[in-house]
Amino acid sequence: MINFVTHNLNKFNEINAIMENNKIGISMVKLEYEEIQADSTEYISNDSCKKLVNVVDSPYFIDDTGLYIEDLNGFPGPYASYVQETLGNKNIIKLASGSKAYFKTVISFYYNRIYQFTGILHGKISDRERGENKFGYDPIFVPENSDQTLAELSLEEKNRISHRSKAINNLISFLIENNIK
Amino acid sequence: MINFVTHNLNKFNEINAIMENNKIGISMVKLEYEEIQADSTEYISNDSCKKLVNVVDSPYFIDDTGLYIEDLNGFPGPYASYVQETLGNKNIIKLASGSKAYFKTVISFYYNRIYQFTGILHGKISDRERGENKFGYDPIFVPENSDQTLAELSLEEKNRISHRSKAINNLISFLIENNIK
Repeated sequence: MINFVTHNLNKFNEINAIMENNKIGISMVKLEYEEIQADSTEYISNDSCKKLVNVVDSPYFIDDTGLYIEDLNGFPGPYASYVQETLGNKNIIKLASGSKAYFKTVISFYYNRIYQFTGILHGKISDRERGENKFGYDPIFVPENSDQTLAELSLEEKNRISHRSKAINNLISFLIENNIK
Repeated sequence: MINFVTHNLNKFNEINAIMENNKIGISMVKLEYEEIQADSTEYISNDSCKKLVNVVDSPYFIDDTGLYIEDLNGFPGPYASYVQETLGNKNIIKLASGSKAYFKTVISFYYNRIYQFTGILHGKISDRERGENKFGYDPIFVPENSDQTLAELSLEEKNRISHRSKAINNLISFLIENNIK
């Protein structure tokens, strides 16, 4: 059993669906830990992952996901969840409707040492909120080669293309190759 | 001599002017250190100050300043400098022109233990950038009981009313009372 340290049930559900398809069991560990301020999601995630050694049973992993909007010089970047809670989607549309943007997920996995797996999804900011699955920026993010926002897709459809699923699939390949369960 | 750990020359100049008026010598120590992510400027500042023990000669202090905009649920808060670098003042005006706002400076001073001194300046976000002293949000912040932005004031005028000077004056009183030089 692999521990996933998060208090975000949406993240857990997305990742758990992919893991179940691959017959890998994960367990949600709700735990508060401090994150540093930095421009790089990889750097923040590595630092957080290190802090959990001797706190959480290994193997474990964490998910750090940032949104990088081109017209806003990469804002909100790694501060995506703080900005979601304060500005919210309406203000992001006001500032950046039509701008290119990408999501990046960094998975930091600990098993004797830290391994990182990333996934990126390119797209643009929509001109209004659309879709029922109101997780974070999903209602205002239109993936490349799509007319729908991420929030208009089913979980299955989202997991076929998303930044998070790409990162997790990289982790899964690694787990299988190294026979880690 | 008291060490001020910062790499922001504007902050140093503001504080040095007040210190000189009180015949207190400070020295600028340029040093990179990691800050944690948190909603509370006091908490972040306390954590940073602790990390500098055994790194910087005591007594030393740091300055953490946040901008809290009422219409944006307190955004950008402690992330003021990251947001200044990415969104910039024009985007803040687009989102929050006319909104009430306040600056808060937290000074964490280390001398055998940590002491914190704070200063707040209430005001509002202007409808355009005004003023020559283009330090951070100063061109778009109009203090209470003023028609001018902070950037239209001379350093002397700014230091008479600012969040930073209030915090520093609290520190100075403490230094004098306890005869710390």
